Amino acid sequence: MSIDRSKLQWNGWGWAAHKDAMAEREDLWAWLANELGMPSLLATPARPIEEVTIAPSRLDAAEREKFVSLLGADRVRDDTYERAFHARGRSYHDILHLRAGDLSLAPDAVLYPRSADEVQAALEYANERGIAVVPYGGGTSVVGGVSASSGPFKAVVALDLSGMDRLLDVDAVSGTATAEAGIYGPALEKALQAKGVTLGHYPQSYEFSTLGGWIAHRGAGQQSGRYGKAEDWLVSAKIATPRGALSTESFPKSAAGPRLTDFFIGSEGAFGIVTEATFRVHPVPKEYDFRGFMFRDFASGTAAIRQAVQEELPCSMLRLSDADETHFYRAFGAVGKREGIAGKLAKAYLDARGFGGRPSALIAVFEGDGDTVSSARKRFAKIAKDLGAISIGRGPGERWRAGRFHGPYLREPLMGRGVGVDTLETATRWSNIETLYSAVRTALENSIRKTAPRPGAHGIVMCHISHSYPDGASLYFTYIFPRALDGEIAQWQAIKKAASDAIAANGGTISHHHGVGEDHLPWMAQEKGALGIEILRAVKHTLDPKGILNPGKLIP
Amino acid sequence: MSIDRSKLQWNGWGWAAHKDAMAEREDLWAWLANELGMPSLLATPARPIEEVTIAPSRLDAAEREKFVSLLGADRVRDDTYERAFHARGRSYHDILHLRAGDLSLAPDAVLYPRSADEVQAALEYANERGIAVVPYGGGTSVVGGVSASSGPFKAVVALDLSGMDRLLDVDAVSGTATAEAGIYGPALEKALQAKGVTLGHYPQSYEFSTLGGWIAHRGAGQQSGRYGKAEDWLVSAKIATPRGALSTESFPKSAAGPRLTDFFIGSEGAFGIVTEATFRVHPVPKEYDFRGFMFRDFASGTAAIRQAVQEELPCSMLRLSDADETHFYRAFGAVGKREGIAGKLAKAYLDARGFGGRPSALIAVFEGDGDTVSSARKRFAKIAKDLGAISIGRGPGERWRAGRFHGPYLREPLMGRGVGVDTLETATRWSNIETLYSAVRTALENSIRKTAPRPGAHGIVMCHISHSYPDGASLYFTYIFPRALDGEIAQWQAIKKAASDAIAANGGTISHHHGVGEDHLPWMAQEKGALGIEILRAVKHTLDPKGILNPGKLIP
Repeated sequence: MSIDRSKLQWNGWGWAAHKDAMAEREDLWAWLANELGMPSLLATPARPIEEVTIAPSRLDAAEREKFVSLLGADRVRDDTYERAFHARGRSYHDILHLRAGDLSLAPDAVLYPRSADEVQAALEYANERGIAVVPYGGGTSVVGGVSASSGPFKAVVALDLSGMDRLLDVDAVSGTATAEAGIYGPALEKALQAKGVTLGHYPQSYEFSTLGGWIAHRGAGQQSGRYGKAEDWLVSAKIATPRGALSTESFPKSAAGPRLTDFFIGSEGAFGIVTEATFRVHPVPKEYDFRGFMFRDFASGTAAIRQAVQEELPCSMLRLSDADETHFYRAFGAVGKREGIAGKLAKAYLDARGFGGRPSALIAVFEGDGDTVSSARKRFAKIAKDLGAISIGRGPGERWRAGRFHGPYLREPLMGRGVGVDTLETATRWSNIETLYSAVRTALENSIRKTAPRPGAHGIVMCHISHSYPDGASLYFTYIFPRALDGEIAQWQAIKKAASDAIAANGGTISHHHGVGEDHLPWMAQEKGALGIEILRAVKHTLDPKGILNPGKLIP
Repeated sequence: MSIDRSKLQWNGWGWAAHKDAMAEREDLWAWLANELGMPSLLATPARPIEEVTIAPSRLDAAEREKFVSLLGADRVRDDTYERAFHARGRSYHDILHLRAGDLSLAPDAVLYPRSADEVQAALEYANERGIAVVPYGGGTSVVGGVSASSGPFKAVVALDLSGMDRLLDVDAVSGTATAEAGIYGPALEKALQAKGVTLGHYPQSYEFSTLGGWIAHRGAGQQSGRYGKAEDWLVSAKIATPRGALSTESFPKSAAGPRLTDFFIGSEGAFGIVTEATFRVHPVPKEYDFRGFMFRDFASGTAAIRQAVQEELPCSMLRLSDADETHFYRAFGAVGKREGIAGKLAKAYLDARGFGGRPSALIAVFEGDGDTVSSARKRFAKIAKDLGAISIGRGPGERWRAGRFHGPYLREPLMGRGVGVDTLETATRWSNIETLYSAVRTALENSIRKTAPRPGAHGIVMCHISHSYPDGASLYFTYIFPRALDGEIAQWQAIKKAASDAIAANGGTISHHHGVGEDHLPWMAQEKGALGIEILRAVKHTLDPKGILNPGKLIP
C-alpha cells in the first residue's frame, strides 16, 4: 500500500504529524466564540489511545488461524491501533465517539488481502463461520459507511483492500484503465499520469480514499463537471460476493437488459466487494485555470452556473459559496490581521459596485488545451458579467486550489475547543434549488439554536453549490456550532434529523455524493419507496444470503 | 392515440398505404438475383388476413367482463385484426411468421388503458387471475420483445399504452419534461417543439414507436451523439407492477445507493410497466447540417469517428458505412439508370484520388446554433482530411435525412420475392472494433452460404458504425440473403446463432440498442454471468412474483 497507516490519525483526519496553527490562536477562538454567541470556548481534548480500552477479539483461535493460513500472518492484525483505526469512518459523529475513547464498535481483526482470490477466500470463510465483513478502502466515510458493526453476528472483521493497489492496464485506444480497488487517489493518479492519462476524480478525501471506496459510495470529485461521478466513469467491475465472484458487463453501451454495473455503484459493500475496476480516462490536461468571480448574491451566481451547464460550457468546476460562506472564510482569514491597503481598496471597490449586501464568491476551474481553456473562461466570464458579477482573478482560485484537500484538518482544532463542525449535502432540480436551500438552512439554524448549550448561542450555517448538471445541482452545507458537552451525540442526531427531514420533505436526495452508510438509513425508505427497498433487499439476499456484508448500512 | 392502428400493416412495417416502387422493378430483381448468386427470385406473397385462422380467445366471460368494467367496452378488443396486429413485433423472424399466417401466438385480448391507475388495476386483476400481460407500446420490437406468449399461463393480454399519450409537463428551468409512456415519437416531438424543446430521440422506428418502448428496450436514436440513449436521458419513471405502483428517484444525481431508475431501463416490461417518464430535453436546434464524407476504407473512417468523439466534437451523428454497404446502396440506386455525366465525373474523381478500392461513406450531422455547427463541421472536416477522406457535400447527407425512417419499408418487397433481410447490432471498445467486425461479418457470410437454398448462392453482408462513445462504438449489420423456402425459420435461426455466437466470443454485447426480447435470450447468461442472471430474477420475483409480465423475454 502507498500510505503507512501508522502515520495517520486513528481518531481524526489525515496525517498525525499535521499541525494546525489554529489551535494556539487565542484571537481566533475569541472571535469564533463571539460568532457562535458563546462567552468562551473551553478546551475539550481527545482521549489518547493509551487511555482507551478495547474488548478482546471475538475471533476464536481456529478462525484467526484460518485467516492467517489464507492471507499470511502479517496480513491478519488485531493489535489495538489497527482495531481502533478501523473502528469507524471519519464523520463528525465518528470522531465524537473516537475522541471520547469509545471503541464499543471495533473490528475483531483487520484482514489485508493482496488479490481478488484472497478477498474471495476470506469472504467465503467469513460467510461459512457467520462473521460479519466490513469492506474497507481508505476509511474516510462521513456517513457511518465503515462502522465496524457485527450486526447479528458473533464477530466482525474489517477487510482492508489497501494492499491491492496496482494499476493493471491502460487501454489508450479505448480511453480506459483498469486498477485494483484498494489503490489510493494519489498513487492512482501518479501511475495513470505517467502514462499520459488521468481519471480526474478529486474528492476532498482524495489523499486518503481509494478507487473502490469511490465506487462503493457513488462519489464525486471536485472536477466532476469534466470527469463525472463514479456512475459516469465506471465501465465495469470485478466483485467478490459470498456467493462467488462476478464481473459486470464491459461495453461502452448495451441494451442487453439493465446494466449490472449500475447495481454496484453506491452499493456500499453490502452487495459485494469491488476488487478491480475499469474506468474511463482522459488525456492529462495541458492547462488549468483556477479563478474567482464575485456575484451580488447567491441567486445570481446560481443562475450563472445553470446557464453555463445548460449551454454546455466545458467548465470542470463551478463552486459557488453562499453569502454566509463567502463572509465566513473572509472574516476567518482576517482575524488578527490589520486590514492592509489592498484589502481596504478591494472592499471599497466592492461597496462602490453595489456588492455591499450579501456577495457570493465563485471559484471556476477550466482545463484542457489552451483554446478550450481560454474559450470556456471567456464564455463563463461573459455569463457572469451579464449577471452583474465581477472577476476577482486568479488569486482566489489558486488559494482554493492550494487548500482544496485541507478542509477536514480544521475539524480537529475546533473539536478540541468544544466546537462541532459537520457537513451534509443533497441535490435537486434547478427549479427547486431555492426552496431546498432555504428549507435546509432554516432547519439547521433552528435545530442548532434549539440544541445549543446556552440561550443565545447559535451556529454558523454555510452552503455552496459544487456539482451541477443540466437539470439540477448539489447543495453542500457546512455548519459550525457550540457543542452541548453533556449530550453531544444527541445534539448531533437532532441537528442531522432536522436537516434530513427538511431534505426529504423538499425534494432533495438524502445524499449527492457522501453515500448512505448508517447515518442516512432512516431516510432511505422515503427516497426509494417500500418496493424500492424490497428490490435492494432482494439483490442483497441473492449475493449475500446470510447478510454478513457491511451490516446496518445502505438498506434499512 | 395519435396513430390510427387500422391504417398500419398487421404483418409488416408502417402504413398499409405505403407503396414501394421496387416491387414492380424487374430490372432490380434481376440485378439482386445476380448479387445473391441466384438464377431468379420467385414471388412469395404474404397470406392475407382473410385466409388466416386464429384460435378463440381464452379469456372467460367473467374475465372479459371485468376488464370491460375496469377500462370500458371500447378499450377491450378481441377482433381478429387487433389480435393479429398485437401478435408479434416487427422483426424479420416475426414477419416470417405473420406473412405465413401463423397466429399461434396472439393475445387473447388487447387492453387500452387510459391512465396509470387503469394500467395498475388491469395488471392487478391479471395477476390475480394468472393471466400473462405483454406491455405494448408501438410494437416495433425487432428482437421478439412483444411476442404474445402466454408462458405457463392460461391466457395472455396485450396491454397497449398508446391511449396514454399526453405531454404532462415541461420544466424549462430544469430542462426536463414529463409525458405518458404511450406517446408516439412524432406526437411527442410535436408537443415538445411547440414549447421550444426536443428530446431528440430518433430511432429508425421513430414514426411507430413510443416513449415507454424506448425506455423498456434501452434504445438509441440516430442522433445519440447529442441526445444519448434512454439510459442517458431518462430522469425518472412511474412504474406499474403486480405488487403495486412505484416511482423511481427524480434527482439530477444521487449517492443514496444504486439508482432504481437504472434497474428499469432495458427491463422490457418484465419488471413492470412504465406509465409515465420524466426525461431531459434540449432547446430545439437553430441549425442542422447533414453532410457526407468519403473515406478510403472502413478503418480510416473508424479512426476519424474515434478521434472526433475522444476530442469531444459536438457531432450529433457520425454514421460510417463499410465498403460493402457503401457499394450496395450506390449500386442499388444505379440499377436501370444510365450513368450521367456527373456520376461518371464523380467516379473518375474518386478513382483519381485513389478511392478505387473499398471506399467507405460517412454521413455526419451537426446541429445547434450557427457557431457550434460551423465549428464542429470544420473540426470534423479537418480530422477527415488528415485521414485521407474527401468531403462529398450536403447531397448525400440530405438524401440520407430524407430516407432516414424508410429503411424498414424495403423489407416487404424483398420478402415478397423470396429474399430475407435482417439486421443485428452490437458494441465494443475501440481496441476491439476490428476484431469484432471481422468475426461477425465472417460468421454471417459463412452461415448464409451454409443455409442458402442452392450451391453458389450467398448473401450481402453490410455494416455501419452509427453510435460512438469515448471508449467504443456500435456495429450495425444488415444482411440480405436468398431464403431457404422449405425451412425459413431454421435458416434464420442458424444465421442468428452464428452471428450471436461470434459476438459473444469476441467481446461484443448481444445488443447495443435493439434489446433482448426472445431472440437474444440464449446469450444473456454468458453476457450477465450466472450470478447476474440470478440478480435479474430476484428483482423480477420481487415485483412480479407469479411471473405474469412479458413471459419468455429478457431473463433466461
